[in-house]
Amino acid sequence: MPNYEHLIREIPDFPEEGILFRDITPLLLDPDAFAWAIDRMTQDAATVAPDVVVAVEARGYLFGAPMARALDLPLIPVRKIGKLPYKTVSIEYALEYGSATVEIHEDGIQPGQRAVLVDDLLATGGTLKAAEDLVHKAGGTTVGATVLIELAELSGRGLLGDYPVHTLMHL
Amino acid sequence: MPNYEHLIREIPDFPEEGILFRDITPLLLDPDAFAWAIDRMTQDAATVAPDVVVAVEARGYLFGAPMARALDLPLIPVRKIGKLPYKTVSIEYALEYGSATVEIHEDGIQPGQRAVLVDDLLATGGTLKAAEDLVHKAGGTTVGATVLIELAELSGRGLLGDYPVHTLMHL
Repeated sequence: MPNYEHLIREIPDFPEEGILFRDITPLLLDPDAFAWAIDRMTQDAATVAPDVVVAVEARGYLFGAPMARALDLPLIPVRKIGKLPYKTVSIEYALEYGSATVEIHEDGIQPGQRAVLVDDLLATGGTLKAAEDLVHKAGGTTVGATVLIELAELSGRGLLGDYPVHTLMHL
Repeated sequence: MPNYEHLIREIPDFPEEGILFRDITPLLLDPDAFAWAIDRMTQDAATVAPDVVVAVEARGYLFGAPMARALDLPLIPVRKIGKLPYKTVSIEYALEYGSATVEIHEDGIQPGQRAVLVDDLLATGGTLKAAEDLVHKAGGTTVGATVLIELAELSGRGLLGDYPVHTLMHL
C-alpha cells in the first residue's frame, strides 16, 4: 500500500496556539494520492453496506461526494447552521472553545436507513458524533464512519457509537 | 438528455426575503441524477483542457472533487478566509449586502497553469469572479468555468472573463 503521509502538511499553532493542524491540500494536488484515498475510503465504506453517505462540511465533501458517486448511493450533506434552506434537524455540540450547531435536511434520510459518515479527519470526535446524532434524530442508523486521518492520541473513536471506524492514516 | 430540473427545489425568501433559493439537495439524493451531473460537468470541463480544477467552498466541492478524480487533475479548494492554514492569496468581493473574502493556497497553482472553475450555481457571478481573480493572483489562467445551474436573468456570465462557461441547467 502506498504511503502518502508526506502529503499531509503539519501547520503548528493553527487555527490557534497549541494545535498542530493537518493540512490535506498537498494530497488534493496529487491526483494519484487523491484517487488512492477516494478508492480506499470507498472500499472501506462499502464493507458496512450503507444506504446513504453522510458527508460533513466542508472537507468531508471532498471525499464523500466521489464516494457517493462510486457507491451509487444518495449523498446527504451535513452543514453548519443556517445554510440548509429546507426543514432541518439540528444538533449543538461542544468545541474546545464554545459550541457549534450542524444540520441535515429532515427529508434526507428515510426511517431505518443505514448511514456511513465521511470526513477528512477524526480528532476529538465531536463533529462525527454530532453527525451520528443527526442521523439518529432523522430516523436513520449510523453503521460506520470513514475518515482519511485519525489522530489516535485524541481518542475520538471512544466518543462514537458501536460501529466500525475506518481510517487510512494514523497520525 | 435527461431532465433533472424537478430535483432542484425552489425555496422562496432564503436566505433572505426576495431571494428564490435553488436547493440542490434533492439532486444529491438521486444517484442517477448526481452521476449524470458529475459526468456531464466532467465532459464540459475537459473541453477546455485544464491543468487544475478549482472548486469553490462548499457546494462546489460536491462536484469539483469527483470531477478532479475523473479528470486525473489536481484539486484546489477555494475557501472562506481563515480556513486555509498555509500561505494564501486572497480576494475580497462585494455581496448584495456587505462583502466576503476567499482564499487559495499560494502553492496550489503553478505559473501558467490552466484552471477550470467549478461551482454549483452561477447567479450574480461574484463568487466565480473572485475565484478567477484568485487564480490570476496565484499566477495561473482561468480557461473555463463549469456549473450545474445558471440563473441567466442575473447576467453573472457578463462579470466573468473571456472563457467558456458551461452550464447544465438554465433556471
